[in-house]
Amino acid sequence: MELTFGQYELVYNAFSLGIAAFLAATLFFWLGLSQVSDKYKMAVVVTGLVTFIAGYHYLRMFDSWGDAYTAVDGVVTSTGVAFNVAYRYVDWFLTVPLLLIELILVMSLTRSETVRKAILLGGAAALMIALGYPGEVSGGIDSTRLLWGALSMIPFLYIVYTLFIGLSESIARQHENVRGLLNTARWILVLSWSFYPVVYFAPFVMSLDGGQAQTVIEVGYTVADLVAKVVFGVIIFMIAVRKSQNEKA
Amino acid sequence: MELTFGQYELVYNAFSLGIAAFLAATLFFWLGLSQVSDKYKMAVVVTGLVTFIAGYHYLRMFDSWGDAYTAVDGVVTSTGVAFNVAYRYVDWFLTVPLLLIELILVMSLTRSETVRKAILLGGAAALMIALGYPGEVSGGIDSTRLLWGALSMIPFLYIVYTLFIGLSESIARQHENVRGLLNTARWILVLSWSFYPVVYFAPFVMSLDGGQAQTVIEVGYTVADLVAKVVFGVIIFMIAVRKSQNEKA
Repeated sequence: MELTFGQYELVYNAFSLGIAAFLAATLFFWLGLSQVSDKYKMAVVVTGLVTFIAGYHYLRMFDSWGDAYTAVDGVVTSTGVAFNVAYRYVDWFLTVPLLLIELILVMSLTRSETVRKAILLGGAAALMIALGYPGEVSGGIDSTRLLWGALSMIPFLYIVYTLFIGLSESIARQHENVRGLLNTARWILVLSWSFYPVVYFAPFVMSLDGGQAQTVIEVGYTVADLVAKVVFGVIIFMIAVRKSQNEKA
Repeated sequence: MELTFGQYELVYNAFSLGIAAFLAATLFFWLGLSQVSDKYKMAVVVTGLVTFIAGYHYLRMFDSWGDAYTAVDGVVTSTGVAFNVAYRYVDWFLTVPLLLIELILVMSLTRSETVRKAILLGGAAALMIALGYPGEVSGGIDSTRLLWGALSMIPFLYIVYTLFIGLSESIARQHENVRGLLNTARWILVLSWSFYPVVYFAPFVMSLDGGQAQTVIEVGYTVADLVAKVVFGVIIFMIAVRKSQNEKA
């Protein structure tokens, strides 16, 4: 696959931005733990775990990108060592269920409701990622990518349904000064996640060449990850702080 | 030994998943320490130690795997540097006794009972691992692997017996809202540990070639480690939180 120097650098810098943002977000959440009451501590701990795991994988992707190409005198050459696409999927396999769990934890439902929703939504999320993977590694733009991509949309739609129908009643029961934030949180989740299938299928509709397609995919996923994990995490943290203050007042 | 590119990558990614999951779990347990009362803090500290030690060894295995093979243009070549199998056994030698100790600690038996059970179960666990090792390094599928594997089953059966008969009375004396979780914990322990001999003996019954056998062994052990250390650890943490709440109420 041919990469221009600009494409090579853009992906490299996107990965580096990811490392800095995810590790900084992790520290922000965990250093803020003392600002939330015990009831919401686990939600904030999990929020930081998501960005910690993402930071680890962006470090690995950064190194893998460096191993896959050399750029000397502005000419990018493939070394023959494959860029490891699986890091993203291992990351999502761990973090996407945890993202749903942090939303459930911050709502402070009953214990049984929390366990039930965490297992159903977390399981659907893990299934969604596992089904997308065979399509991603199929290599190019073909029916395999299309088939597995379509299959992975089934658990995705179940998650969207649960977030907007199944959780509506629980959100309506929350204090009014966090209802808006919870609503924002689920919208961020659904909109940022909708961005992944767009990136996944982008090479089909845009008729890009190899280097362009890979650049769109890597930079697109990075932007989506930052919104889904960092921006979403900040909203969860704000909800936890506000609910802690409500209960003290 | 011949490895396909897919086998090589699968093992690599399993190790990387292990690193991320074990380090994240460690932070989850230790950041949750403030949620348990003093009486259960040591159980939660030890739970995090187990995943911390595992995370360290998975980092070493990840690097050792990278040193043992090169994969260029999709062709995997052995470098002649041996993949260090001993990391797993050093890990188990430290973590398997600690896993039993975290279960005993969270039960909060009398002091003398805690010490006695910790020494007996911890000692049996260390012996079990030490006896398995000569078979694992014997290299292939032969009578050495069979003999040492069989010997290491003796302390294993003693542990299963103690968990199900010796601890039954102590579990019956626990508060009813943690009895179910304790029961789940010992089942996870026994079922996940039963998985290790299955992996250990798998090459015998499945007539796999070298690359397949090694892939089954490495990925199988990784899955078993994740269940035995992370899933089991989350149950221990939940027991500690719930017992702390019981005692406050």
